[in-house]
Amino acid sequence: MSEVYGVRRGLLRDRCAATGSAAALISRPANVRYLAGGAPPGAVLLLGPDDDVLLCPRTPAAGDPADGRPDDGLRLVVLPTSAGDAAVAAAELARTDGVESLAVEEHHLTVARHRALGSVAPRLRLADLGLAVEQQRIVKDEDEIACLRIAAEITDQALGELLESILVGRTERHLALELERRLVDHGADGPAFATSVATGPNSGRVDHRPGDRRVEEGDFLSVCLGANYRGYRCEIGRTFVIGTSPAGWQIELYDLVFAAQRAGREALVPGTAYREVDHAARQILDAAGHGEELARRTGHGVGLEIDEDPQLAPAAMGKLDACVPVTVEPGVHLPGRGGVRIDDTLVVRQEADGGPELLTITTKELLAL
Amino acid sequence: MSEVYGVRRGLLRDRCAATGSAAALISRPANVRYLAGGAPPGAVLLLGPDDDVLLCPRTPAAGDPADGRPDDGLRLVVLPTSAGDAAVAAAELARTDGVESLAVEEHHLTVARHRALGSVAPRLRLADLGLAVEQQRIVKDEDEIACLRIAAEITDQALGELLESILVGRTERHLALELERRLVDHGADGPAFATSVATGPNSGRVDHRPGDRRVEEGDFLSVCLGANYRGYRCEIGRTFVIGTSPAGWQIELYDLVFAAQRAGREALVPGTAYREVDHAARQILDAAGHGEELARRTGHGVGLEIDEDPQLAPAAMGKLDACVPVTVEPGVHLPGRGGVRIDDTLVVRQEADGGPELLTITTKELLAL
Repeated sequence: MSEVYGVRRGLLRDRCAATGSAAALISRPANVRYLAGGAPPGAVLLLGPDDDVLLCPRTPAAGDPADGRPDDGLRLVVLPTSAGDAAVAAAELARTDGVESLAVEEHHLTVARHRALGSVAPRLRLADLGLAVEQQRIVKDEDEIACLRIAAEITDQALGELLESILVGRTERHLALELERRLVDHGADGPAFATSVATGPNSGRVDHRPGDRRVEEGDFLSVCLGANYRGYRCEIGRTFVIGTSPAGWQIELYDLVFAAQRAGREALVPGTAYREVDHAARQILDAAGHGEELARRTGHGVGLEIDEDPQLAPAAMGKLDACVPVTVEPGVHLPGRGGVRIDDTLVVRQEADGGPELLTITTKELLAL
Repeated sequence: MSEVYGVRRGLLRDRCAATGSAAALISRPANVRYLAGGAPPGAVLLLGPDDDVLLCPRTPAAGDPADGRPDDGLRLVVLPTSAGDAAVAAAELARTDGVESLAVEEHHLTVARHRALGSVAPRLRLADLGLAVEQQRIVKDEDEIACLRIAAEITDQALGELLESILVGRTERHLALELERRLVDHGADGPAFATSVATGPNSGRVDHRPGDRRVEEGDFLSVCLGANYRGYRCEIGRTFVIGTSPAGWQIELYDLVFAAQRAGREALVPGTAYREVDHAARQILDAAGHGEELARRTGHGVGLEIDEDPQLAPAAMGKLDACVPVTVEPGVHLPGRGGVRIDDTLVVRQEADGGPELLTITTKELLAL
């Protein structure tokens, strides 16, 4: 895998040089991980004209697959415990290396940290790298997609086991913890994000945090979870009904959200505008009178972060490429009653390659549990 | 509880006015929570000359005790889904309210976000609030300490149950998940931070992330966990030996770290310099030849965040006050062999009030499990 990181850094170096900076300081952890192969806590990457340096507040631990292992092509500098901020140490190093202009991640550095860089290296011009690394991360290579595929398999297994257990009477919080344990049982390095379990009136809410409410007969139950495998994160969301037969309004709402989610999935074609994917799903819910209750987006990219570009939203700019993994996750929440969310992780593929690749394969039939 | 938030905001408003800003924008989530009673995800607090406004990206969920409930004395503004960043919306509101100077948290806002504030309100002068709220948070009131006390009780219970179970053969990762489940079983709103379980050569490492290593006979086993109760977070760390009788080096190392930790605890007297507490523990480990392996600090404050001021470290400035909860957590890690950490949460109290109040009461004897 080592070569891939050098290639990624080379691409960024070229881009950076084209904007007039001979060096770049990468501080956002997922970006450090992407370019360095590993991101020990607090580490920053200094991409210099000659060599690339990973500055770590302490010796990287071996064997933390979620953090990764720094690439051998990097110079590793472990800072003394008194050194403080690794970004400040990197600016000092850039200054002593004679760098004149350093591109930094202004969307990640705080104002106070940025000022600290300026004060250790007052003659160093600080430019803005912008979202260069995030943009480079959007299209994944097949090794990255393979990690996401394994993450999705693990996630499907964890969810499948939950569906076989007794749910009535258990709290949202316990179900969420059980799902996270099962993710780890099946080989996840951890959950990709805080597992959401929502029952009854909470069901269908975006990012609902599990609480003390217990599953009851007749509830909608919506869950959203995902595995982190080697740093790559996927997401699945499903909604079930508890009891033998769903109510009429439940079937109707479910079918509607299902239709919207399918429309979103089917819009995942290379060359389609991000906003068109959102529109495909949104218009179905909108036409049914749920326009007011909708989330600001229908899906988003996944990878080393659970929420990355592209955004599938009404005002998003840009078009889908092949090999971009995204979620499609429309939902409707009716205050006081509950609702439905259906969420898959898919990889955009050319139609000649079979169209969108569904990674999360748990059934989307309305199951009565 | 409502009055307390108004009092806190009044103190900050006075402080802010004294530096020439009639309004302040609070964006750091723990600071929002401290001043507003609740911090829905993405919310910011605008402390105005006349009224205080909590701007939320969406309607706050009811019943999320870890996030808290916004105080009734606040004006609540739920932003439309298209609004974007709540901090930018707050700057616009301040501008339309005729505010000339707005103090912001430069240690929390990114450079890009700060610039976005400036561009929606170009005539608004952006000043730096600095760590004003963090400093206000250092000394806790008795209601806050009561939450920490409950968090510590929950933590002791979860750890106590683990000690009664069979440990040999189980992985670090599973033990960590089990501890987190037990925290929730006993009433925690969640873990206060990612639980650390470290076995054998990993034991005693600061912030070790649990991996696939299984507990073996003869290992040191060190754990670090804590409960989040109503937003307040505590921490305990203990080291055990696995098997019937510890080796000589294990007993020796344990006794040494225990002595250092006791010295740190005994130094917790109002008026003592932060660095003196660190020194009391550090010098014992240093004198035994472990100076090189020590962490950059011996402890830190806890409260709405698991890591807040004060820092008990060699270069820390300031002195302990009564009613400041801190951890005391020296440790030694011998590369390749493992090590010992002992970590308690205590509240600094006047000697007349009985001296430091130990919140985490699990025994610190060297247990062979």
